[in-house]
Amino acid sequence: MQSVTVYLDYLCPFAWRGLELAHVVAPQLGLTLKLRHYSLEQAHHPDKAGLPPQAPSWHLAQQPLEGPRSLRAFLGSHAARQQGQAAHLRFALELFRLRHQDGRELDEEALVEAVGRAGLDLERFMADFEEEESRRLELARDLEAAAQLGVFGTPTFVLPSGDAAYFRFTQLTTEPELALELWELFTAVLHNGAHIETIRRPRITSA
Amino acid sequence: MQSVTVYLDYLCPFAWRGLELAHVVAPQLGLTLKLRHYSLEQAHHPDKAGLPPQAPSWHLAQQPLEGPRSLRAFLGSHAARQQGQAAHLRFALELFRLRHQDGRELDEEALVEAVGRAGLDLERFMADFEEEESRRLELARDLEAAAQLGVFGTPTFVLPSGDAAYFRFTQLTTEPELALELWELFTAVLHNGAHIETIRRPRITSA
Repeated sequence: MQSVTVYLDYLCPFAWRGLELAHVVAPQLGLTLKLRHYSLEQAHHPDKAGLPPQAPSWHLAQQPLEGPRSLRAFLGSHAARQQGQAAHLRFALELFRLRHQDGRELDEEALVEAVGRAGLDLERFMADFEEEESRRLELARDLEAAAQLGVFGTPTFVLPSGDAAYFRFTQLTTEPELALELWELFTAVLHNGAHIETIRRPRITSA
Repeated sequence: MQSVTVYLDYLCPFAWRGLELAHVVAPQLGLTLKLRHYSLEQAHHPDKAGLPPQAPSWHLAQQPLEGPRSLRAFLGSHAARQQGQAAHLRFALELFRLRHQDGRELDEEALVEAVGRAGLDLERFMADFEEEESRRLELARDLEAAAQLGVFGTPTFVLPSGDAAYFRFTQLTTEPELALELWELFTAVLHNGAHIETIRRPRITSA
């Protein structure tokens, strides 16, 4: 099976839509989804102003658990990953839905609820979560890999061809045919011989 | 005939490729091309740091002719436009090729050569160019229209549907079928029901 890597941040509604899309199309295309993490809080932290994106001066993975809004979700995501790739995907989808459909905070209660909805083993999840230093190391590795790749936002997809791109859309579709059409458009853009680097709408902002 | 508006800057190699593409597909699709201007020198001027893009503190159209690298080309473009839309397009293509194929500066000699290659009336071009205040007013109007639309780079295309986007690719194709395929991919992205806002590859930069 070919694999698509998705860089995501649970805070990001575009990452949520992107993962729902990939989840719908993956079985149709025989793809597996590998989830990795990129942190908007780390990328946009005030301490980073003026520094290149590859040189973060503020490391999310080293912060106290009660500080940043996203750290607990990322560590929970790495805990869920211990139960396998499919369990990780189900957990991520449920946590995204709790955040972006139900407007929930990414707190411990939401993590436990996502574990339950996704059918993961809660006891094992809690034990893995409590191995916090291991989870923090895994998170740091993901954020470093994202920086190496030049990821600047979520979702960023890495296709089996090696092509990678940020893909931002505002209307979620989970209807299989429409989802497939949208995904094929995205991959066709990345595989076109003109080497398309960017398609981006201007955003009209009032002066 | 339906019309596509292209915002361009003669300094920009992506605008050159974009215009060559549009030039190849326009007759196949029964489209006319209307050229307008956006200035990278104005957008990225140091005086603008920290200001919103809609509030330029440095206006290209008010600068001396011998200062910025792009002003003479923009005023020449407005002079060429006085000879009609088709003449304007031919002039723009020739000036882009002189700059980005032949590596020429955008000086008076290059303007005159573009006029010749494009088959425009040189005497009329020079007279229109010398009506410099009118050309500067037209340029200021274009740059203001670009700011209103939220244009942030060139080329930005405005399709007959009203959808607008920046479209950046690195491999020029003028082969009609491949060009049409590339254009149709671009328009399909903008017309897809998911309202795609951005597809953008990460750029790997060494730390």
